[in-house]
Amino acid sequence: MTAPPPPFAGIATFLRSPHVPRPECADVAILGVPFDASVSYRSGSRFGPRAIREQSLLLWGYNNALKVAPAEHLKIVDAGDVDVVPVDIVETHRRVAAEAAGWVGAGAAVVGLGGEHSISLPLLRACASKHGPVAVVHFDAHPDTWDYEYPGYPYSHGTPFIRAIEEKLIDTAAYVQIGIRGPTYGPSDYADALKLGCRMMTRDEVAERGIAATIAETRQLVGDRPVYITFDVDAVDPAFAPGTGTPEVGGFTSHEALQLLRGLAGLNLVGADVVEVAPAYDHAQITSILAANLVFEMLSLLAVR
Amino acid sequence: MTAPPPPFAGIATFLRSPHVPRPECADVAILGVPFDASVSYRSGSRFGPRAIREQSLLLWGYNNALKVAPAEHLKIVDAGDVDVVPVDIVETHRRVAAEAAGWVGAGAAVVGLGGEHSISLPLLRACASKHGPVAVVHFDAHPDTWDYEYPGYPYSHGTPFIRAIEEKLIDTAAYVQIGIRGPTYGPSDYADALKLGCRMMTRDEVAERGIAATIAETRQLVGDRPVYITFDVDAVDPAFAPGTGTPEVGGFTSHEALQLLRGLAGLNLVGADVVEVAPAYDHAQITSILAANLVFEMLSLLAVR
Amino acid sequence: MTAPPPPFAGIATFLRSPHVPRPECADVAILGVPFDASVSYRSGSRFGPRAIREQSLLLWGYNNALKVAPAEHLKIVDAGDVDVVPVDIVETHRRVAAEAAGWVGAGAAVVGLGGEHSISLPLLRACASKHGPVAVVHFDAHPDTWDYEYPGYPYSHGTPFIRAIEEKLIDTAAYVQIGIRGPTYGPSDYADALKLGCRMMTRDEVAERGIAATIAETRQLVGDRPVYITFDVDAVDPAFAPGTGTPEVGGFTSHEALQLLRGLAGLNLVGADVVEVAPAYDHAQITSILAANLVFEMLSLLAVR
Amino acid sequence: MTAPPPPFAGIATFLRSPHVPRPECADVAILGVPFDASVSYRSGSRFGPRAIREQSLLLWGYNNALKVAPAEHLKIVDAGDVDVVPVDIVETHRRVAAEAAGWVGAGAAVVGLGGEHSISLPLLRACASKHGPVAVVHFDAHPDTWDYEYPGYPYSHGTPFIRAIEEKLIDTAAYVQIGIRGPTYGPSDYADALKLGCRMMTRDEVAERGIAATIAETRQLVGDRPVYITFDVDAVDPAFAPGTGTPEVGGFTSHEALQLLRGLAGLNLVGADVVEVAPAYDHAQITSILAANLVFEMLSLLAVR
Amino acid sequence: MTAPPPPFAGIATFLRSPHVPRPECADVAILGVPFDASVSYRSGSRFGPRAIREQSLLLWGYNNALKVAPAEHLKIVDAGDVDVVPVDIVETHRRVAAEAAGWVGAGAAVVGLGGEHSISLPLLRACASKHGPVAVVHFDAHPDTWDYEYPGYPYSHGTPFIRAIEEKLIDTAAYVQIGIRGPTYGPSDYADALKLGCRMMTRDEVAERGIAATIAETRQLVGDRPVYITFDVDAVDPAFAPGTGTPEVGGFTSHEALQLLRGLAGLNLVGADVVEVAPAYDHAQITSILAANLVFEMLSLLAVR
Amino acid sequence: MTAPPPPFAGIATFLRSPHVPRPECADVAILGVPFDASVSYRSGSRFGPRAIREQSLLLWGYNNALKVAPAEHLKIVDAGDVDVVPVDIVETHRRVAAEAAGWVGAGAAVVGLGGEHSISLPLLRACASKHGPVAVVHFDAHPDTWDYEYPGYPYSHGTPFIRAIEEKLIDTAAYVQIGIRGPTYGPSDYADALKLGCRMMTRDEVAERGIAATIAETRQLVGDRPVYITFDVDAVDPAFAPGTGTPEVGGFTSHEALQLLRGLAGLNLVGADVVEVAPAYDHAQITSILAANLVFEMLSLLAVR
Repeated sequence: MTAPPPPFAGIATFLRSPHVPRPECADVAILGVPFDASVSYRSGSRFGPRAIREQSLLLWGYNNALKVAPAEHLKIVDAGDVDVVPVDIVETHRRVAAEAAGWVGAGAAVVGLGGEHSISLPLLRACASKHGPVAVVHFDAHPDTWDYEYPGYPYSHGTPFIRAIEEKLIDTAAYVQIGIRGPTYGPSDYADALKLGCRMMTRDEVAERGIAATIAETRQLVGDRPVYITFDVDAVDPAFAPGTGTPEVGGFTSHEALQLLRGLAGLNLVGADVVEVAPAYDHAQITSILAANLVFEMLSLLAVR
Repeated sequence: MTAPPPPFAGIATFLRSPHVPRPECADVAILGVPFDASVSYRSGSRFGPRAIREQSLLLWGYNNALKVAPAEHLKIVDAGDVDVVPVDIVETHRRVAAEAAGWVGAGAAVVGLGGEHSISLPLLRACASKHGPVAVVHFDAHPDTWDYEYPGYPYSHGTPFIRAIEEKLIDTAAYVQIGIRGPTYGPSDYADALKLGCRMMTRDEVAERGIAATIAETRQLVGDRPVYITFDVDAVDPAFAPGTGTPEVGGFTSHEALQLLRGLAGLNLVGADVVEVAPAYDHAQITSILAANLVFEMLSLLAVR
Repeated sequence: MTAPPPPFAGIATFLRSPHVPRPECADVAILGVPFDASVSYRSGSRFGPRAIREQSLLLWGYNNALKVAPAEHLKIVDAGDVDVVPVDIVETHRRVAAEAAGWVGAGAAVVGLGGEHSISLPLLRACASKHGPVAVVHFDAHPDTWDYEYPGYPYSHGTPFIRAIEEKLIDTAAYVQIGIRGPTYGPSDYADALKLGCRMMTRDEVAERGIAATIAETRQLVGDRPVYITFDVDAVDPAFAPGTGTPEVGGFTSHEALQLLRGLAGLNLVGADVVEVAPAYDHAQITSILAANLVFEMLSLLAVR
Repeated sequence: MTAPPPPFAGIATFLRSPHVPRPECADVAILGVPFDASVSYRSGSRFGPRAIREQSLLLWGYNNALKVAPAEHLKIVDAGDVDVVPVDIVETHRRVAAEAAGWVGAGAAVVGLGGEHSISLPLLRACASKHGPVAVVHFDAHPDTWDYEYPGYPYSHGTPFIRAIEEKLIDTAAYVQIGIRGPTYGPSDYADALKLGCRMMTRDEVAERGIAATIAETRQLVGDRPVYITFDVDAVDPAFAPGTGTPEVGGFTSHEALQLLRGLAGLNLVGADVVEVAPAYDHAQITSILAANLVFEMLSLLAVR
Repeated sequence: MTAPPPPFAGIATFLRSPHVPRPECADVAILGVPFDASVSYRSGSRFGPRAIREQSLLLWGYNNALKVAPAEHLKIVDAGDVDVVPVDIVETHRRVAAEAAGWVGAGAAVVGLGGEHSISLPLLRACASKHGPVAVVHFDAHPDTWDYEYPGYPYSHGTPFIRAIEEKLIDTAAYVQIGIRGPTYGPSDYADALKLGCRMMTRDEVAERGIAATIAETRQLVGDRPVYITFDVDAVDPAFAPGTGTPEVGGFTSHEALQLLRGLAGLNLVGADVVEVAPAYDHAQITSILAANLVFEMLSLLAVR
Repeated sequence: MTAPPPPFAGIATFLRSPHVPRPECADVAILGVPFDASVSYRSGSRFGPRAIREQSLLLWGYNNALKVAPAEHLKIVDAGDVDVVPVDIVETHRRVAAEAAGWVGAGAAVVGLGGEHSISLPLLRACASKHGPVAVVHFDAHPDTWDYEYPGYPYSHGTPFIRAIEEKLIDTAAYVQIGIRGPTYGPSDYADALKLGCRMMTRDEVAERGIAATIAETRQLVGDRPVYITFDVDAVDPAFAPGTGTPEVGGFTSHEALQLLRGLAGLNLVGADVVEVAPAYDHAQITSILAANLVFEMLSLLAVR
């Protein structure tokens, strides 16, 4: 056995994958989107991609739960970060979609590192450009299907999924929200999400029915559709993921999060993201470490596919 | 829908309620008590009320679990903070009781923001001045029924409930402690609490019997008595509530805390407090956010009453 | 003497001034602008206004250096925060200018609490709407006269003063930059600022010539023109002001900052701001305390006028 | 009842036990090993012993779960810290073993405070010098049975238990690992541990079978053998124990950790340690408080023996 | 040369002096007073003594500036902490005075570790019990000669020196305040201090006249009187001493603080204290390290006497 | 002008230089040495290189003080990190020297990023392998010329320069120490450094004589010799550089540090390092930002050579 360098050493790309700034043939492209301009509470997720990369070095490579070493089965590259424009969310989304589509065109599944949740919209655009409307498994405390957060502005971190549905990027027969909880403006917030066709499994429902039942229903809904997984770290409780912008108490434990993701093994995963990591509010890097692990589980899902 | 200002903007009163410094007609008065002089370990809860107010702005208004928007049913005011005297706990308690009694007299239920746990004593005095001895549901890691912490000094943050019982503010037939755990001076600490008539449900007992059974027995004990809820954030595990003075490992999760409070819906709630939030030991404001949510649940309990 | 409440108690408005959300007759309006969407490095200054307000409570009221109690000479109000739109800097600027102009129209000098430095532009618009082009004393590590930071986008936190000059809000015969230092893109960055007419006193020049000479030349340049003071906290060294977005080593001490401001006593101050306080990067609140003191000195300058 | 001094006062020895720097007759010697030179990720556990001692003052003395006050049954001394040599792990281990053996020879059970996990090796040497090969209950996220972490170097924090097995310090018929999880280099990492004879109960297995079953099987394996308990705090989730060097998400809660330890009551405990507490990464001291509690449970196990 | 143990190892007494809890013959007794109940802003200095002790281990023993190793000339003991009563400042002061007087009676100079500044009063009582009214060199941002902070309460952290003067513990012909600055309630605050006879050297005056002149005048005023030095760490700027309760910007650098203390070499020092260290607000322990150094300089002054 | 990506985006190499893991033709190689195993107080500098790289992205490229853009004149590469062995300082030094010598052989000046100060020894070995004994300008709080810190162990972070002198790597006629201060074991510590031939300019001497005189004498001593600059960040005061292992109060300001380095422009610089950055103790990244600036000044010195 040759030991890799210790995790505190070396230039930080995700899992020490080669840094490949322009699309080329690969199985997976890790793509950072350091954008946080539209968030409704604590900003700072622009530093998420860098923090997740750094902590990914702590992941030794083999997933004991899923019994797979992703990098042995997949050509993984670190595509670096999209060149965002903090003052223009529309242009930023355009660039994200373009860059992601380049990778998708080159045959890669794109795994996005956020940045705020609005970036799922252009990532879904790139994904749907190849696969058509996709199933979506959406882990979050918030439905993110508000019509707007700032009246008159369609794009922000609370609206990506209503926009994606309007743009027909999501197959709403297989759109599952998991972990929703906390106060909202009013009863219509949840009702509106349901009207869009989403299957909302609140955190309370998951607690009541259990992780296994949650997974079973999700798998059944998704079936063999191409599926996109989006994981807002605030799906997890702030005790486990303090470094985020709109923390919501009463969330999942990190163990539950891992179980939920691993339960999706075998689905036809075609794209994914982990978003809303805000390192300035993290401590001891526990949120970044968790996020890096979530990405690692996603890579494992891609590898066991 | 008109969006409220984002939570990072504006003067911080609880839930953006109007600041009303003198008692007037209201349903609920939020009253801060920035006092921490008697604590036995880490001081700092004097900054609790301000931190809880700030994080309350993150609560959008509608409680999806209890299906109620408290501010639509109740006239809620932020009464500001009592003018405490750090060097005189007796005088401080007198002022708290007087100010709270003013609000109670004006028809309001008072919800206290601590500050250390000793402030439950004067808040109970004000409550009992109207309702007579009240049932008490007391969430805590510690019984707080010591005879004294500093020999010769009857008032401190470990003694409010023995004093309240001596002053006949509590109906001991319906005094429930939930979450007690951790080392004490000796076996008599628990025994003494039991002798006072309290039904102590230790954290271990709750873990064993489950949340539902805990709620059921509590509801049965309280019945339709007027009831006061006091929530020491150290009932929750330090992972979820690090910003407190005497953290005790092995506590509740934030999800369990929410479930326990929501389980009290329908009881005749007449007063409440959330205490022992010490922001200097918090990180990413997770303790203040939790405390703000606990207060929000209490307001919801008042609204669904 | 009646002691005020201790600084840890009460609702936090600036210096406990009354919160007046709509323009009315006043001498000074403190106006928060919780906007940070265009910053080039660390976001988070949206929480600046709230943090500055909180720490202002530590200021007892009388300025021993300038021998004045601002609140005894001026009617000071806390105007709260502008309702910003994180995803639209142009609209946000429009709202800031409108709200500030309302106060200016009502006779008040506006003192802005940032938020990022781009907000000086709309504050200058409001100021110039009454006074015409104003002298500007600009404390900063960076000239903030770049043509753009994001190609094609005229408005961002590095461009407010070139835009203000283009809009003829600044009397460039009396535009002084104090504290400039650190690396830039190239030699043209300083050269461009000079071409705009600005008198740039670099941090090195101030160190060499001394505080007194810096003040003397500034006073001589400003003369009796109406003058606006803008203070980016990164003019001060990160040791004294860590809680900011683009920290630059080698800056002023807090004592030098106070001396520089006090040296402007007697000038015809008509508006001011303190910007770029990013509390998530602060510790022990030292940056917010410094910023609150800087605002207090500005109020003192207004009072001794 | 005489109240002890409050926990914020006084010189910090473990549980205020007398500081006894040279072996003498005692039941338990608390021995700090401030060594962290071989760790593979975050260094800093050299400050673990001091932090654990400090937080031990918060433990009031009586264990309500096990119904015992350890100090009433055992003569406990604080032996201070071993004089480690950061640049020589072999010599450091020699000194630890020598000092611990001195205490064992004087009749004491040694409870080590780490410091990194490599120190379990010399502590086991001292233990086995009296008891022969011992049963080991090993709580950890990582098996720590790698052949080496740095090729060619047999001793480091990932190798103590393979070395101990090679040195015949462990009775492998009763070597239980509890809580193992997370990525490793490859499938052989777990396989190698199993080949050494260890009974590995992964965190997932414990989650599935439950705490009670875990305890039952452990007790059955250990039987009445002399047993050593080693507790790496990273067995617990980083939410509960952020202050550690190689945090691994998905771990135990603090409540589960306490239950697991208490479940070992009655076993023939002859030595123990709590390791990998790295205070620079802790916040609000929650990791040190947890570690102090774990040591307290170990002392309780010794007292009820 | 025999190297001492590294500073991260061992039980933390001040400078590794023997812990001697009861007065016995010694030259210097280090006495902690973990009391913070009367402070007007941030509490937490009760943890000051422990933090200062810990960081004292980083001081290698020989003072290169004053060319003396205090422990070679003086028998220094660590007297531990006074058993304070958080809810009774008068009783706490009585205990401090009694314990300190015991040491003074045994021939020792007492050096107090705070704890809030009110503790200087009982320490001065003990000092004056032997030496009569003493000269006082008082480093601080605040005069601490208010008549009261809480109307009707004579004792608090802002009043020790008016009380000491009233009790005739201070020889007001040689009472020097150094470093005073910042806002106060009004002009009378400074005027009142001057009326008491104090020579107030504001921070601005020291900046203008220089360190050497400050020292010269102080030495001249003190002459050969027995002198007590009290050092509130907020005399130093919050950049250098963030871990304190009422930080005041514009203060001394740590280098100036050292120079000022060393300038007092040769005076007839009979007692001293360093107060207002609040570790919860410190970072990287820089305030505690500074405070430990200040105590070390005081010991050096005693040694070169 | 084409704007570079914002500093929060992209893979972090020093100044966005290409990552070149094996020696090839270049002018400067930035070489990280993430090693901290021998430090005498706080460990953690193993994370220094990564943190410095990250903050280097905030440096826009042009040095306004020295009027040079280093990357326009020099081919700068980021050589990544040496593969260190935490448990073997001798082998680690061997690897550092070998890797650095490879770069030196390829014509590059090596600038090391620490890591602890012991790494200057192998970096000097590589430097001297080409240039023979070199002049050394050594910024530090500590002389680091102890014979040993751990009796019997010649290599550790307090001994690199005595070893380098013994190995004849340093031309002791031009060995300058700048910034020395703080307590030591005894008077011999300074005396021993002087006996080795070093010109020690203590921090106090620099304060007295001024920066200009310090520079002048240093330049005169170095003359046109090949010179190595080693900068231990603890030369700077902990207020400006809290993130370090053995902080020493009373140090330089960041402005003084910049001035001192810039004063060396024109010397024949052949190698350099910045060491002892310990990010776990940093806050708001101010130490890393300072260190990145110090490296940038060194690159500028190389460019103006």
